[in-house]
Amino acid sequence: MFKFEIQKQSKKSRARIGEITTPHGKIETPAFIPVATLGVIKGGLSSQETEQSKVQCQITNTFHFLDLDRAEQVEKMGGLHKFFNFNKPIFTDSGGFQVFSLGKGSELGLGKIGSIFPNGVNQKQKGKNLLKISRKGARFKSPRDGREILLTPELSLAVQKQLGADFIYLLDVCGTPLDDKKTAKKDLEITNQWYKRFLSASKGLKNQKIFGIIQGGVYKDLREESTKFVNDLPVFGIAIGGALGKSKKDMYKTISWVNKDIDWQRPHHLLGIGDLEVLEEIIKLGIDLFDCALPTRIARHGTAMTSKGYLNLNAGKLKNAFEPIDKKCQCPVCKKYTIAQINFLFKSKEMLAGKLLTIHNLFFLETKLEEIRKKIESGKF
Amino acid sequence: MFKFEIQKQSKKSRARIGEITTPHGKIETPAFIPVATLGVIKGGLSSQETEQSKVQCQITNTFHFLDLDRAEQVEKMGGLHKFFNFNKPIFTDSGGFQVFSLGKGSELGLGKIGSIFPNGVNQKQKGKNLLKISRKGARFKSPRDGREILLTPELSLAVQKQLGADFIYLLDVCGTPLDDKKTAKKDLEITNQWYKRFLSASKGLKNQKIFGIIQGGVYKDLREESTKFVNDLPVFGIAIGGALGKSKKDMYKTISWVNKDIDWQRPHHLLGIGDLEVLEEIIKLGIDLFDCALPTRIARHGTAMTSKGYLNLNAGKLKNAFEPIDKKCQCPVCKKYTIAQINFLFKSKEMLAGKLLTIHNLFFLETKLEEIRKKIESGKF
Repeated sequence: MFKFEIQKQSKKSRARIGEITTPHGKIETPAFIPVATLGVIKGGLSSQETEQSKVQCQITNTFHFLDLDRAEQVEKMGGLHKFFNFNKPIFTDSGGFQVFSLGKGSELGLGKIGSIFPNGVNQKQKGKNLLKISRKGARFKSPRDGREILLTPELSLAVQKQLGADFIYLLDVCGTPLDDKKTAKKDLEITNQWYKRFLSASKGLKNQKIFGIIQGGVYKDLREESTKFVNDLPVFGIAIGGALGKSKKDMYKTISWVNKDIDWQRPHHLLGIGDLEVLEEIIKLGIDLFDCALPTRIARHGTAMTSKGYLNLNAGKLKNAFEPIDKKCQCPVCKKYTIAQINFLFKSKEMLAGKLLTIHNLFFLETKLEEIRKKIESGKF
Repeated sequence: MFKFEIQKQSKKSRARIGEITTPHGKIETPAFIPVATLGVIKGGLSSQETEQSKVQCQITNTFHFLDLDRAEQVEKMGGLHKFFNFNKPIFTDSGGFQVFSLGKGSELGLGKIGSIFPNGVNQKQKGKNLLKISRKGARFKSPRDGREILLTPELSLAVQKQLGADFIYLLDVCGTPLDDKKTAKKDLEITNQWYKRFLSASKGLKNQKIFGIIQGGVYKDLREESTKFVNDLPVFGIAIGGALGKSKKDMYKTISWVNKDIDWQRPHHLLGIGDLEVLEEIIKLGIDLFDCALPTRIARHGTAMTSKGYLNLNAGKLKNAFEPIDKKCQCPVCKKYTIAQINFLFKSKEMLAGKLLTIHNLFFLETKLEEIRKKIESGKF
C-alpha cells in the first residue's frame, strides 16, 4: 500500500521528482508538509479550505497529544484523519524536537517553547533545562501542568500508533549547534540505541511507515556515521534532523555530508526547514519533503508570500490598494479579495484576515512547488 | 425592487410570516439578522461558510467605519456587499447605539464599549461620558485615537450611503433604562428633529431603503408619541430601539405599548435582542426582524445552542463525548464533528473551534426560525 517511486532525476543537480503512495492518497515530491501542530493548520481553516490551498499532506506533533493526554481519544475516534476530518497523508513527529525545546533549547534560548504551547509557558520555568536525558528515555516536567513524563522510544511509538498517522518518526535526541563533539557523540549513541528499541517494539506495525532521522549535529564524521546507521534500518524514509549549523551555508554543507552516503531510493525529509529563500537550494540537494511552520505563522501575523517577495498586509498605507495580493495567483483569496480588504480585516483584528492569508500562503507555496516539479520534469531546473 | 409582503397572519397572536424583497435577494420573516460588526461575522467564517449556516442577511455597524475612516474605501470597492463578498441583504445601523455606549452607557457601565472596539479601549477614558449631545449632533472623542467626531444625521446618512447596505437606519438618541422622563422627553425631541434632517438629506436615495426607530425609553406616552411620529415618516420599515426596561417583562410591555399604533404593513425590527429565551415571545408580539450578537459571541467562547439548551464545549469531562453537538442538527459541523473533537480544539485554543461553533449556532437558530415560520404558516404557532 506504501510506495515511493522516483519518476525523474535531474541531470544538473540531485533534484528529482517522485511520488509517495499511501492508504490516504499520493504525495507528489518535492513536497511541502504544512505544520498542523495540534491536528489542524492554525488560522481556523476547515478541511475544505485546507484542500482549496492545494495542500498534499500535513505533519502533527506527537508531544502535545501526550502532554494533553488525548491520544487515546483520537484512537477511539479512528485516528487523526477521522478526528480532524483530513483525508490526505499525515505525518507525526516523535516528540524529539519538543524534548530539545524543553532541554537545551530552553536553556540556551534556542527552543521555541513559547510558540508551541497553546496555553502559554510558566514564566518561572523559562530558561531552565526541564529535561533529563538518559539511556532509558527523556524525563521532563510538562510545562503545561508540571506533571512528570518519561518519553521513551516505546512511549513515542505507542502514542504515534494511537494517533494513526501514515508516517511516524523514530525518537531521537536533538542537539544544538553549540554542542561540543563529546556531547554530540554521546547523543548520537543514545539516539541509535533508541532507534533499535523503537523498531524492535514496532514489529507488526500496520498501515503506518517509519522515517529514520539522521543526527550527528555539526560534525562531519558523526553525520556520516549516522547516515550509514539509518541507511541500514528497515525504515521507509530518511529524515535529516537536529542541529544543521548556524547559517544557510552550514546547512547546505551538512546536507552534502549526508548526501555522500544516503540511500537515494528512499524519500528524504529535511526537518523544520522550508522558507522561500532555501526552497530551490535544498531541492537541488535532493530533498523530497520539508515541513515548516513559517508560511502559516507569518500569514497569521499579516505577511503574504508573493512573486515579488514578502508583503506585510498589516501595515498602514494599504487602504487604497485595490489589487489582489499577487496578480498571477489563482488562489481563492486572490480571486475574491484585494489587499485593501485584507488590510482592513487585519486592522479590525478579524480572525478572517489570518485565515485568508494562510490559505493564500499555502496555495502560493504549493503552486511554486508545482512549477519546480514541472521544471525538473522538463529538465529546466 | 424593494417590497415587504405579509404572507400569513396568525390568528392566535400578532405573529406573521412575510417576505422582504431586496436587490440582493429575499428575506423570509420572522428573520434573524446576525451581527457582522465590521463587515464579517466574527469567528473567521468565509462568505461560503456564512451561507452554509443558512444566514439570510447581516447587520454591520456604521460607527466603526466612520471611526476607522474606511467608508470611502468600501465605496470605492462598490459597497459592503463587494468589499466583504456577501451577496445577501445587508443592514447598517446609524451609529446611534455606539453613541449611547460612549455616552451614558459608558458612564453607567451599561454600554459594551469594550467588546465593540477591536483595538481595545483607553482605560483612562473608561467610565467617562465621552459624548455631548446637542441639537446639532453627537460630539465625541474616538476611543480608538482620541480624534473628535461630530456625528450628525447628515454624516450618518453620508457614511451609510458610502457603505451601500440595502437597509439603513435613521440616527437616533439612545437613552438608558435609568433616564428620568424629562431626559427621555428631550432625547425624543432631538431624535425627531434628527429624523427630519436625515430624511430631507436622503432625497433621491438609490437602491437603499430606510428604517425609522421608535424611541421614548420606558415611558408609555413617549413610546406612543414616537410610534405615531415614525408611522408618519416615509420609511420602509420600523424598528423598536433604545431602553426597553430592566427585564424581559418590561421589554414585552414596551413592545405592547408600541403595538397599539405601529403600522402593521411595514416590517418590524427589534434592535439588539435575539436570545433563544425571548425568540418565540417577541415573534408573537409581531416582530419580523431581530439582530443580536449573542449567538455568535457565545459560540466563540465555547457555548453551543442545542435543542436541550446551552452546552459549554470548553468545559472538562467532554473528552469522551463522541456524539454530535445536537443529534437532530443537520449543520455541516454536526455532520462532521463530535463534542470531543470540538472540546479538544477549544482546549488547544485552535481558532477553528470558535468558527465551528459559530457555524453551528447560526445554523441552529436559522433552523429554529424555519420551524417557527412553518408553524405560523400551518396555524400551529
